[in-house]
Amino acid sequence: SPGLPRGRGCSGSREVVPTCERYAVRRLPFARLADGDVAFFERLMPGRVVTGEEEVKPFNVDWLKSVRGCSQLVLKPQTTAEVSQVLRYCHERNLAVNPQGGNTGLVGGSVPVFDEIILSTALMNQIISFDKVSGILVCQAGCVLERLNEYLEEQGFIMPLDLGAKGSCHIGGNVATNAGGLRLLRYGSLRGTVLGLEVVLADGSALDCLTSLRKDNTGYDLKQLFIGSEGTLGVITAVSVLCPQKPKAVNLAFLGCQSFAKVLETFTTCRAMLGEILSAYEFMDEKCMELVERHLKLSSPVTDSPFYVLIETSGSNSTHDEEKLNNFLEQAMASGLVADGTVATDDKKIKAKLLGLYGFLWSLIPQVLWGLRERITEALTHEGYVYKYDISLPVGKLYDLVTDMRARLGRSAKNVVGYGHLGDGNLHLNITAESYSHSLLDAIEPFVYEWTARYSGSISAEHGLGFKKKQFIQYSKPREAVVLMQQFKAMLDPKGILNPYKTLPS
Amino acid sequence: SPGLPRGRGCSGSREVVPTCERYAVRRLPFARLADGDVAFFERLMPGRVVTGEEEVKPFNVDWLKSVRGCSQLVLKPQTTAEVSQVLRYCHERNLAVNPQGGNTGLVGGSVPVFDEIILSTALMNQIISFDKVSGILVCQAGCVLERLNEYLEEQGFIMPLDLGAKGSCHIGGNVATNAGGLRLLRYGSLRGTVLGLEVVLADGSALDCLTSLRKDNTGYDLKQLFIGSEGTLGVITAVSVLCPQKPKAVNLAFLGCQSFAKVLETFTTCRAMLGEILSAYEFMDEKCMELVERHLKLSSPVTDSPFYVLIETSGSNSTHDEEKLNNFLEQAMASGLVADGTVATDDKKIKAKLLGLYGFLWSLIPQVLWGLRERITEALTHEGYVYKYDISLPVGKLYDLVTDMRARLGRSAKNVVGYGHLGDGNLHLNITAESYSHSLLDAIEPFVYEWTARYSGSISAEHGLGFKKKQFIQYSKPREAVVLMQQFKAMLDPKGILNPYKTLPS
Repeated sequence: SPGLPRGRGCSGSREVVPTCERYAVRRLPFARLADGDVAFFERLMPGRVVTGEEEVKPFNVDWLKSVRGCSQLVLKPQTTAEVSQVLRYCHERNLAVNPQGGNTGLVGGSVPVFDEIILSTALMNQIISFDKVSGILVCQAGCVLERLNEYLEEQGFIMPLDLGAKGSCHIGGNVATNAGGLRLLRYGSLRGTVLGLEVVLADGSALDCLTSLRKDNTGYDLKQLFIGSEGTLGVITAVSVLCPQKPKAVNLAFLGCQSFAKVLETFTTCRAMLGEILSAYEFMDEKCMELVERHLKLSSPVTDSPFYVLIETSGSNSTHDEEKLNNFLEQAMASGLVADGTVATDDKKIKAKLLGLYGFLWSLIPQVLWGLRERITEALTHEGYVYKYDISLPVGKLYDLVTDMRARLGRSAKNVVGYGHLGDGNLHLNITAESYSHSLLDAIEPFVYEWTARYSGSISAEHGLGFKKKQFIQYSKPREAVVLMQQFKAMLDPKGILNPYKTLPS
Repeated sequence: SPGLPRGRGCSGSREVVPTCERYAVRRLPFARLADGDVAFFERLMPGRVVTGEEEVKPFNVDWLKSVRGCSQLVLKPQTTAEVSQVLRYCHERNLAVNPQGGNTGLVGGSVPVFDEIILSTALMNQIISFDKVSGILVCQAGCVLERLNEYLEEQGFIMPLDLGAKGSCHIGGNVATNAGGLRLLRYGSLRGTVLGLEVVLADGSALDCLTSLRKDNTGYDLKQLFIGSEGTLGVITAVSVLCPQKPKAVNLAFLGCQSFAKVLETFTTCRAMLGEILSAYEFMDEKCMELVERHLKLSSPVTDSPFYVLIETSGSNSTHDEEKLNNFLEQAMASGLVADGTVATDDKKIKAKLLGLYGFLWSLIPQVLWGLRERITEALTHEGYVYKYDISLPVGKLYDLVTDMRARLGRSAKNVVGYGHLGDGNLHLNITAESYSHSLLDAIEPFVYEWTARYSGSISAEHGLGFKKKQFIQYSKPREAVVLMQQFKAMLDPKGILNPYKTLPS
């Protein structure tokens, strides 16, 4: 979950090396864009065809400025019918296509590698329907996550997912990467909350699985194949999502812990005591706090500690929730799990009772505390080049990888930091250096993947494989599974025009 | 969710008409079982090969006694390797196979249609691991749901699904049908809680996707294709499930409502007031209550009403939960939504405060109230032949189908009853008659499917399509989706030996 500022692209003006130069990758024999093609698209969607190197550039480079394609064409369809026509044409002409949402992906999945035509969902941003009784939202794939959440909040609901990139990312892209994020602990994965999808296949045929039912066991659940397929099997054009009710009370606690063992014990304790109102359990190490303070001028609300924990509760009764949180904090302080803490709430009135207990500063608003955690990704980009790893591990092993990596790299890395969704067993391991270097990469990989495989972890918990991780799939999936995936790809996209060079190993 | 008594088969001793006689279905050109085949299996798993008409009979007939195959062979493997060897042999020999769990399915999916070899998971009942920190259970496919839940309760956890058939159904069968049941409202569908699967494919190759990670975005999520595929794409041999913590407090309320409109309004009110502790919202009509009273000698705990509602709360703080439930009941009674009610709790001490409020009878134990709802299916079987429909609809339209069907059938049906998981938009419509008749079936079908399709509902919310509903898939899925499903089937099982005549239209 990247901590993105609103709007496209991060700061810094260095030039990005084209992907095809940095990595040893060969262009597949797709057709090359011809003038006739552009003319066809101009007729199909006049005024929504982007050409020209400067205009296309922001679509060619990922948010991290780590990969760069050289597409010459961006298409901005508004309807499913237009997406169908585009793909039917490209399929016939053997032109490769790169579907793109908010371009906030972190594994190079959302930008072209060579000259793939970029199919942007930016103008497919209509809400189709929302039913207040069932909480089911149906919308086009290009709706921005934060806009959807604002729309829902007015009706007393929220989106079941939340992530740092919310201001830019598209719901279609979220679904295509099976985004996890900050609310997964409470509302589960998109595999449960996405009820239906409309998808356009590689040959341009539309597949309408846009059902709005909580339960539907009529045949195989085709939509699941497209969730997390990173645009390689079809282009998601519309989504039906089950949305939870907006919680009446949201409380945050930001705590300092003296060791990772205490972070873990605090988790077990808080899960038992907060139960059904626990909605997030995030952690970050002291290095993360340093970077957020230095580059974003944020300040820590608690005394310096080796680890920090952010706990969110969401519930329907503020009195009950505060009592539960209070009981937990009392227990955590009394047993020495937590060294210092700060609490924030959406509720405006000062919580006198809690204030009296520990002198916690209740006047902080939740956004300030969330910012410390959500903007780590952004802070990291100020350090130079960032090697990003998004690992699932048994929760007890989570931080050992950071410690081992730090020891291994020594002074060849600028920073080795760890943070993430501890409640989901998801570590974000980030390594920074002044600039990209092959030798540092070789010191990190495949070590990080071998380490992860040794503990049966996943080399990509939520970011997907995209371009950067696809060659490492075998560390998390057996050969037979990869072969089967390749068969699915060949069946659904026999010419391989959809997001080539991504997800599956070449 | 069938309300099954413990053990195999329902009461009554009538003979079941063989499926191939009742329905116009042609045997596909699979090989016929030869003596050499039985000898091979005897060598492979000595003592776990069942032959002989009487011994095989209970595996040939479904629990409803509505369909009957004529298999001559049941195999009871204990390991994945044995399942592999069986399927490799059958694949080579072109012998059809019917995978079978607890045989509690309601759409004829779990028994053979002709002479398919029955592959029973009855002896694959080992728990492989359980991790108390993450709550992740890994077990073989033949574990009985209720046994798993008992095992977990000892460790402070529960299974994320619960259904009437829990005493007999196997977890592998639950996953193969994507069972919904009574806890879906709270813990979501198996598509979110099943983390990994081990599956043996038609050719005998084993696919190990038995990961135990909450998040894993490395390639396509193959396991999803097998969830809900009713044994037609592979045989599930092991399952990894994310289990919620056992709630510290469980409360039940059983209420009488004067109209379906009040059932709906009660739902909206209770969802808002109970929020995160609401774990079930079930309804039944007065006809259901009549049948449960008549055939099972149960008695209604509230005064006669046209509709009854069962509400369950599960939470981590009994005081908070009771206060929420109390506030809700107060509101529901005061505004006339509810005419009469009874409350039960796991907590032994009498809730004096609530007693004082409405004179609710708190001494009832939850099992007694749940029994009224869970045993409706069982009560219905005492009436003769049961035509069962399991429909998803927009919640506001849910009962209109029952009313319309009752008016349509008039006196040609004995009973037309409606009950189900209202909170999930899931209606169980059941029609009874002394015995099966083509003419009554013709009056019901395709009317019931056309009605459902008119409101974009699903003709099978949770039971699956199996043998009985497969020809009606087009009422809930577009042609392109069905074609794609058939392509998946052809790819994974080119000879079509796995559970033939099921799920997809012929």
